[in-house]
Amino acid sequence: MVMFGKKMVKKAGPHEKVGLPPGTLMHIGERKTEKVKITIIDYDEKELQEKEAKKVEECFPFKEKPTVTWVNIDGLQEVQTIEKIGVHFGIHPLVLEDILHTGQRPKAEDLGEYIFIVLKMLYQGGSEEEIVSEQVSLLLGSNYVISFQEMEGDIFNPIRERIRNSKGRIRKAGADYLAYALIDAIVDNYFVILERLGEEIESLEEELVKNPTPATLEVIHKLKTNLVFLRKSVWPLREVINGLERGESPLIKEHTGIYLRDVYDHTIQVIDTIETYRDMVSGMLDIYLSSVSNRMNEVMKVLTIIATIFIPLTFIAGIYGMNFKYMPELEWHWGYFGILVVMVVIVGFMALYFKRKRWL
Amino acid sequence: MVMFGKKMVKKAGPHEKVGLPPGTLMHIGERKTEKVKITIIDYDEKELQEKEAKKVEECFPFKEKPTVTWVNIDGLQEVQTIEKIGVHFGIHPLVLEDILHTGQRPKAEDLGEYIFIVLKMLYQGGSEEEIVSEQVSLLLGSNYVISFQEMEGDIFNPIRERIRNSKGRIRKAGADYLAYALIDAIVDNYFVILERLGEEIESLEEELVKNPTPATLEVIHKLKTNLVFLRKSVWPLREVINGLERGESPLIKEHTGIYLRDVYDHTIQVIDTIETYRDMVSGMLDIYLSSVSNRMNEVMKVLTIIATIFIPLTFIAGIYGMNFKYMPELEWHWGYFGILVVMVVIVGFMALYFKRKRWL
Amino acid sequence: MVMFGKKMVKKAGPHEKVGLPPGTLMHIGERKTEKVKITIIDYDEKELQEKEAKKVEECFPFKEKPTVTWVNIDGLQEVQTIEKIGVHFGIHPLVLEDILHTGQRPKAEDLGEYIFIVLKMLYQGGSEEEIVSEQVSLLLGSNYVISFQEMEGDIFNPIRERIRNSKGRIRKAGADYLAYALIDAIVDNYFVILERLGEEIESLEEELVKNPTPATLEVIHKLKTNLVFLRKSVWPLREVINGLERGESPLIKEHTGIYLRDVYDHTIQVIDTIETYRDMVSGMLDIYLSSVSNRMNEVMKVLTIIATIFIPLTFIAGIYGMNFKYMPELEWHWGYFGILVVMVVIVGFMALYFKRKRWL
Amino acid sequence: MVMFGKKMVKKAGPHEKVGLPPGTLMHIGERKTEKVKITIIDYDEKELQEKEAKKVEECFPFKEKPTVTWVNIDGLQEVQTIEKIGVHFGIHPLVLEDILHTGQRPKAEDLGEYIFIVLKMLYQGGSEEEIVSEQVSLLLGSNYVISFQEMEGDIFNPIRERIRNSKGRIRKAGADYLAYALIDAIVDNYFVILERLGEEIESLEEELVKNPTPATLEVIHKLKTNLVFLRKSVWPLREVINGLERGESPLIKEHTGIYLRDVYDHTIQVIDTIETYRDMVSGMLDIYLSSVSNRMNEVMKVLTIIATIFIPLTFIAGIYGMNFKYMPELEWHWGYFGILVVMVVIVGFMALYFKRKRWL
Amino acid sequence: MVMFGKKMVKKAGPHEKVGLPPGTLMHIGERKTEKVKITIIDYDEKELQEKEAKKVEECFPFKEKPTVTWVNIDGLQEVQTIEKIGVHFGIHPLVLEDILHTGQRPKAEDLGEYIFIVLKMLYQGGSEEEIVSEQVSLLLGSNYVISFQEMEGDIFNPIRERIRNSKGRIRKAGADYLAYALIDAIVDNYFVILERLGEEIESLEEELVKNPTPATLEVIHKLKTNLVFLRKSVWPLREVINGLERGESPLIKEHTGIYLRDVYDHTIQVIDTIETYRDMVSGMLDIYLSSVSNRMNEVMKVLTIIATIFIPLTFIAGIYGMNFKYMPELEWHWGYFGILVVMVVIVGFMALYFKRKRWL
Repeated sequence: MVMFGKKMVKKAGPHEKVGLPPGTLMHIGERKTEKVKITIIDYDEKELQEKEAKKVEECFPFKEKPTVTWVNIDGLQEVQTIEKIGVHFGIHPLVLEDILHTGQRPKAEDLGEYIFIVLKMLYQGGSEEEIVSEQVSLLLGSNYVISFQEMEGDIFNPIRERIRNSKGRIRKAGADYLAYALIDAIVDNYFVILERLGEEIESLEEELVKNPTPATLEVIHKLKTNLVFLRKSVWPLREVINGLERGESPLIKEHTGIYLRDVYDHTIQVIDTIETYRDMVSGMLDIYLSSVSNRMNEVMKVLTIIATIFIPLTFIAGIYGMNFKYMPELEWHWGYFGILVVMVVIVGFMALYFKRKRWL
Repeated sequence: MVMFGKKMVKKAGPHEKVGLPPGTLMHIGERKTEKVKITIIDYDEKELQEKEAKKVEECFPFKEKPTVTWVNIDGLQEVQTIEKIGVHFGIHPLVLEDILHTGQRPKAEDLGEYIFIVLKMLYQGGSEEEIVSEQVSLLLGSNYVISFQEMEGDIFNPIRERIRNSKGRIRKAGADYLAYALIDAIVDNYFVILERLGEEIESLEEELVKNPTPATLEVIHKLKTNLVFLRKSVWPLREVINGLERGESPLIKEHTGIYLRDVYDHTIQVIDTIETYRDMVSGMLDIYLSSVSNRMNEVMKVLTIIATIFIPLTFIAGIYGMNFKYMPELEWHWGYFGILVVMVVIVGFMALYFKRKRWL
Repeated sequence: MVMFGKKMVKKAGPHEKVGLPPGTLMHIGERKTEKVKITIIDYDEKELQEKEAKKVEECFPFKEKPTVTWVNIDGLQEVQTIEKIGVHFGIHPLVLEDILHTGQRPKAEDLGEYIFIVLKMLYQGGSEEEIVSEQVSLLLGSNYVISFQEMEGDIFNPIRERIRNSKGRIRKAGADYLAYALIDAIVDNYFVILERLGEEIESLEEELVKNPTPATLEVIHKLKTNLVFLRKSVWPLREVINGLERGESPLIKEHTGIYLRDVYDHTIQVIDTIETYRDMVSGMLDIYLSSVSNRMNEVMKVLTIIATIFIPLTFIAGIYGMNFKYMPELEWHWGYFGILVVMVVIVGFMALYFKRKRWL
Repeated sequence: MVMFGKKMVKKAGPHEKVGLPPGTLMHIGERKTEKVKITIIDYDEKELQEKEAKKVEECFPFKEKPTVTWVNIDGLQEVQTIEKIGVHFGIHPLVLEDILHTGQRPKAEDLGEYIFIVLKMLYQGGSEEEIVSEQVSLLLGSNYVISFQEMEGDIFNPIRERIRNSKGRIRKAGADYLAYALIDAIVDNYFVILERLGEEIESLEEELVKNPTPATLEVIHKLKTNLVFLRKSVWPLREVINGLERGESPLIKEHTGIYLRDVYDHTIQVIDTIETYRDMVSGMLDIYLSSVSNRMNEVMKVLTIIATIFIPLTFIAGIYGMNFKYMPELEWHWGYFGILVVMVVIVGFMALYFKRKRWL
Repeated sequence: MVMFGKKMVKKAGPHEKVGLPPGTLMHIGERKTEKVKITIIDYDEKELQEKEAKKVEECFPFKEKPTVTWVNIDGLQEVQTIEKIGVHFGIHPLVLEDILHTGQRPKAEDLGEYIFIVLKMLYQGGSEEEIVSEQVSLLLGSNYVISFQEMEGDIFNPIRERIRNSKGRIRKAGADYLAYALIDAIVDNYFVILERLGEEIESLEEELVKNPTPATLEVIHKLKTNLVFLRKSVWPLREVINGLERGESPLIKEHTGIYLRDVYDHTIQVIDTIETYRDMVSGMLDIYLSSVSNRMNEVMKVLTIIATIFIPLTFIAGIYGMNFKYMPELEWHWGYFGILVVMVVIVGFMALYFKRKRWL
């Protein structure tokens, strides 16, 4: 969890900027990619233009075109790029600040001319148990969507394919539908993370029954922290999408409503599953703790049985190991065998006692 | 819980479709039946027509007839069948998608021409502790109800009987009453599941008092997970039915309101009972844990009593087992018997001490 | 809790009826009384008529009389009786069903002509720790109240007395005041149950401090389950009475409002007390668990002290019990006494050590 | 907690009255004072009249006077006194009942002519850990406030002083300001209780770190119960005062609003502090429990180290204490010293092992 | 936590004033600074005047000037100073009281002429784990902001710099923007505290895995209390800022709304992070507790293995240490070596048993 914990702290907020005037642009967050990459896709029902922009200025002319334009920017370290877009598209400095500070909470803000949406993209990290979070910001205007990602990802590729191949209704629909498609891709991706967690929970459950170790506890803890993290990323989305659907912004056309409601349902489903997993994981902790108790119990029983049987016998042997001059039993011919018989009888009684107590 | 856990994961959502355009039809979920079976019941107060359709097209003419038509489809694997119905009855692709993706949350959506309702049917699985969930989707139009099940079930048979025998007011009422009857049958069935769980809880409670074992813990855990699962399936229903009752859809006539309120009451009752069971089960976990502690305590007491009595005695015996040349006591004539008396006195004091501590 | 648990399950709901058309009358619940008993009290400010009806038809003429009529029915097993009342007074079949199915949740439904109210009467059962619940249904019409009980009870007797003796304002008021009086009697009775539970909690608290045993735990568990049960019965009442008070039914006159608000306050008080008791009982569980730990601790300390003192001494004795040919100490004249002195010194050091650890 | 528990039970509600008509006056609660004492203070900006009334009738004429009149009644056992006031001032019987039944929940009721307010005054009881609760009821009319206390208290004395000395704006303001001043005095007094609890928590925290004993646990439990009790008394106040402030009663003038908002803020502060204390106390329980575990751990370690070192050594000594005829080692000249050396080596290895395990 | 606990108690509320008329000015809280320091900054887009006032009267003329004036007062012990400001600026006595009583909860009150805002500034205290809280009160008028601090701090210095250097839009904006800037500085500072806590949590997590000690538990407890404290300080802010943003006060211009929404987002982020930390810390407690159990388990295993192996062997040695006359085995030539072999075999079996139990 080390890396994870670090990220949560480092991303906690724009504290490095304490005291600077609001709207001062500065990238806060890890630099996750080498070069900033700008791709432009411009389409309507009939035509499609796609290119990778060298300079940010290349996307400016599309603002005026009636076609739908999707500008995607991977990498946030070049502040001037973001700033130029801000100036050209008339974006409020605070919005630009939020795009650059990657510790935002998912939210949607209607600013009249455009809607600003912040989402969290979640990836399974390199190692098994790690979940990496990336901030995706969307600016939805009347005929454009600008998306900002911290690093290049392949999660939007299927949407690019759909645009290229005119699959589905995407080419016929407007920018709001494109924004919906991007949100949908991100939410759908949560299910992949959930499935992975579900599998971990399942295998943990088996481990818990068969052979719980302290390592099991650590995995439980990690799962729990991951779920807390997931929850934090997904929970606000509910409100965000609900707000978009019910919002009165003319930027979102009425027939996109049903699609947003669909994403909303998916979000609720994700939240539901997270809550269920949380319940299951906390139940597993209880099981783990009581299985530790049970094992201790078993250990104690073994010790108690052995000690209870042999301590009295050892005492008897000790008695006849004493060196008193006058110990009549020592002289008896059957004394030794007699005492062995006595010991066997004692063991028998003990065994009976333990059996009655169900220790054996 | 293995199977159960798997299902929860596999059904978690439409992740297999990540990136496909929304509305792409594909059956997601287990294939639970061999063949798709379509049955049509068409009735009004006077006439009744019932048949099993070979082709889905057979049910199309009923759309126009003023009589109430109930089309029931068991099995979702034939996507084209669902698609054809969708086209003919004018169902939105996203709705069809939801019908096919069996990981939906219970919900009701008013789409103007028809109302789309998703419910969860719960069955006691083959084995004792297993609960199987099946998605049932209803499409309620002005004069038809189309129901989609994942597999054939006998839960709707009594309703078929009532239609055939003109029992109750079903033949006199419209499609909304039929939809209500189907929902009611599903909710009533939850009580069967609850009764089973109640019996398990009861027998567990006895077991807990008489002889708790680690297996008891596992059963508690399983019960808990089952209750979490039940809760997840039933909780949203509350809102669903409330929405139907209060909704302003002209598809639901006013006099059906009281029936929906009745199902609503039943749903609340189910939720209440689930919450009560959850409270009881979590109370049982506490009892289990403390009974484990109590047993450990008892084991420790036995060990301590035995050890505390015999260790000092063994020490005394050890003293007189030493081989020193000059040990005057060894020479005394009553030394041996004297030391035995001393030991008995010690045991007596110990017994008193333990009695005072209430260990004996 | 066995009996209690059973009841909760058996009453859970109308599952025995799965598939029957709604409104089919059938008594679901235990048959708690031998014979159905119908009593009629008819009164206005001046006159009073009281009789026990042999046939249910005897109460029909009162429907038309402008005087207030209270029909009380003890015992629900004779379905036709209920049905006849239903037909004569124009009661909806679903309401009759709810009267007969004694697993209802407290609720109030305004059906225009009459208001239907379901309540739970709670009795201290025969044995000490048992709480028995009985469903009481009220039908409040413009000039009549019909009350249905599962068995005869004496809780309404004071109200009968008040009517007979013209005590209070009951003879001057209408049917709504009578309904209020019945509800008030039931709510007041909850305080008796609460007082009993309060006494149990108090005596348990003393027991917990003085001498906790595994039996204590069972009592705590039973208390907890009883409180869960109580809560389930009382919680919905809050909404029920609030609904009656704020409801716009013309059946409830304005000046009855303040009385209903009074019952409402009592209900809140009952709920508050239940919550407080729940908090206290769960605090007691913590105390119990930690007192078990403390006792184990004490047991372990005794064992450890005894073992730690005697094991080294026994070892020393063992050393000089060895039979080596050349053991110079054995030959020394003061060897034996010297070794005894050494042992005493060791014991002294041990005692000091334990004192510093505060074990003695 | 015994006394406390009792009070909670005894005060639980008007159960002794089950079945009596509502509005029957009877004092329910402990009789806390010997004699009923009635004091009257009548004032306006210029004049002040103060007297102790022998008969309740003495306060009647003030009802008509335009000056502000404060009638304070200590002791509720004389039911006729309360009744006479009720008749003269036109108080509803149910309100009188609530004044007499001292188990009410804090509440405010607007009855048109007057506002009825119930509050809980809390005192530090005689013994250290006891909190005593007293019900204070206020009747606020257009030009009078009647306050009912269960016993004489000195909490209102500063207000009397302020009236006498014309301090603050009290003499210039109306009856609503007087009512506010009384409420404010009661809420301010909660801070005294809170401070006391805060000190207890602080000292407990130190004790917990230094030397936790089972007595510590009892104190934690008592604190917890006290906090539950406090919470129950203060929580409803929030709504009460909010209701007064936002209420549209003409009895409360607009410029009193800011004062009520101030009391409201104090109430929120009290609730906040109670919640914080609850969090802290429940954290302390966790610490206590784990410190018990830690001590057990330590005890076990001592036992284990001693036993693990000496049991093998004792076994070796036992070996050479055997009386076999042919035991060559016994004959060796350096056998005894050799075996001592072996034992020392074993102890050394054990010490190393324990060191590596960090037990030493 | 001692110091911290003390502060929480001492600041709990204005209890020292019980009974005094409301609005009586008295500084309640620690005196945190030696001398009261008043600084005045007056500016508009073109001009800037900055001075340190010797007398409070120096700031009075600025009230009438159309420029924006920021009066900052460090130190609250001189009650007359506050009072004079109150009189000159027309501040309500209760507001002045709240400024002086430093135990207020964060809140915002719209009083028409001005808005009164209370906030909590949090500092990392001198020692590592201490968080110090200071009350900052703001009075926002149409053209002035008066800020009251308990002690001098450097948190507002960057804002002073921005005013001096005309950085950002502060010089162009009004008093409401200045108030926003102050609030923003305080909220931004929370992130610093959070980062520190995050680092503590991270290092604790490592410690927990590697080597948990009772000291770890204390740190966990301290973290928990700190988080409870933080939460108490930040939680109400949410409502405060939301209230300012949505409030209809003409003092807050429309274009400041987006800035307030930005602070609001930051507050939500702080709250979110606090909740996440709370979850993590409580998860760590579980881990700690179970790691204590695990260690006990390990200790017990060592004891049990040693005892179980050697106790039976010692018994056997004891047998042949007995002094019976007739013990044939003693005479056998290979008796001694035979018994050693028997012992080795027993040890072998034990080892196998333990291996199967996975104890070795």
